[in-house]
Amino acid sequence: MRIIGIDPGLRTMGWGIVEPMGGSRLVFIASGICKSGEGSLADRLLRLHDGLADVIEQFAPDEAAVEETFVNKDARATLKLGQARGVAMLVPAKAGLPVSEYAPNTVKKTVVGVGHAEKRQVIHMIRLQLPAAAPQTHDEADALAIAICHAHHRASHSQLTDALRKAAG
Amino acid sequence: MRIIGIDPGLRTMGWGIVEPMGGSRLVFIASGICKSGEGSLADRLLRLHDGLADVIEQFAPDEAAVEETFVNKDARATLKLGQARGVAMLVPAKAGLPVSEYAPNTVKKTVVGVGHAEKRQVIHMIRLQLPAAAPQTHDEADALAIAICHAHHRASHSQLTDALRKAAG
Repeated sequence: MRIIGIDPGLRTMGWGIVEPMGGSRLVFIASGICKSGEGSLADRLLRLHDGLADVIEQFAPDEAAVEETFVNKDARATLKLGQARGVAMLVPAKAGLPVSEYAPNTVKKTVVGVGHAEKRQVIHMIRLQLPAAAPQTHDEADALAIAICHAHHRASHSQLTDALRKAAG
Repeated sequence: MRIIGIDPGLRTMGWGIVEPMGGSRLVFIASGICKSGEGSLADRLLRLHDGLADVIEQFAPDEAAVEETFVNKDARATLKLGQARGVAMLVPAKAGLPVSEYAPNTVKKTVVGVGHAEKRQVIHMIRLQLPAAAPQTHDEADALAIAICHAHHRASHSQLTDALRKAAG
């Protein structure tokens, strides 16, 4: 079972793939960034789409998790991020993957233990949990954090489902 | 030569297709809406994608025009619109169509003659220019207005190109 985490952005889209190995153990598979480059907005969105579609085809993840974009006060920036996020949600959905969303604070709380962790704390915890990972950029590190977050949430969700099933049975 | 105009929205995406017939004459081909329906955001974006991809496959437009979304003060609404707009730009780009963008005021000014026209004036001018069209919704009417706008802009652009070519000898 493989999970892809995606950190959406119009300029750079981070992605990171992990594989849960039972319990809270995770294995690093791959991570990287897709760049939109120059050109019209349509060209840039298409480049992000194609890059992310290639990653999904190559590594065949089973589930996807995307960060719930921080809504800031700059409406133009929010619109740009929204457009990139639309592509980030669409590509895994088209490939048939269930797509979960997590707020940035939930990601930090799950990975570091506190909701308002600094970037370097997040990177430190990623290195502890995924020793084989060497994220080169913040976008890549964030994407791995989102994948880790989803891995832990789905694990506790399935433990809860099992417990409820046993209780009911 | 066929033009598809797209009015992006997360709930409903309007589309309208016209064919320039020389000069300022236009022929109505088709119009309609794609609905995102219920479900997760990823499911809704996928439904918009599939609906719009079907329309492009069925009517085979050569160029696309998308409204530049109005950036309002509600960041959450802007983000939602951005996500839908990402899909609205991506689908024609994936099909190899050049995608132009027009601000709402440019669309109104081209179709009605003034930038701050009311919706009913826009609908009135669409009926005059495209007698065969019978848009049932505002989203459909807006999409046709965007297609008309692009038809006029590309016509005047190619006239300008021709004039410059002649002047250059």
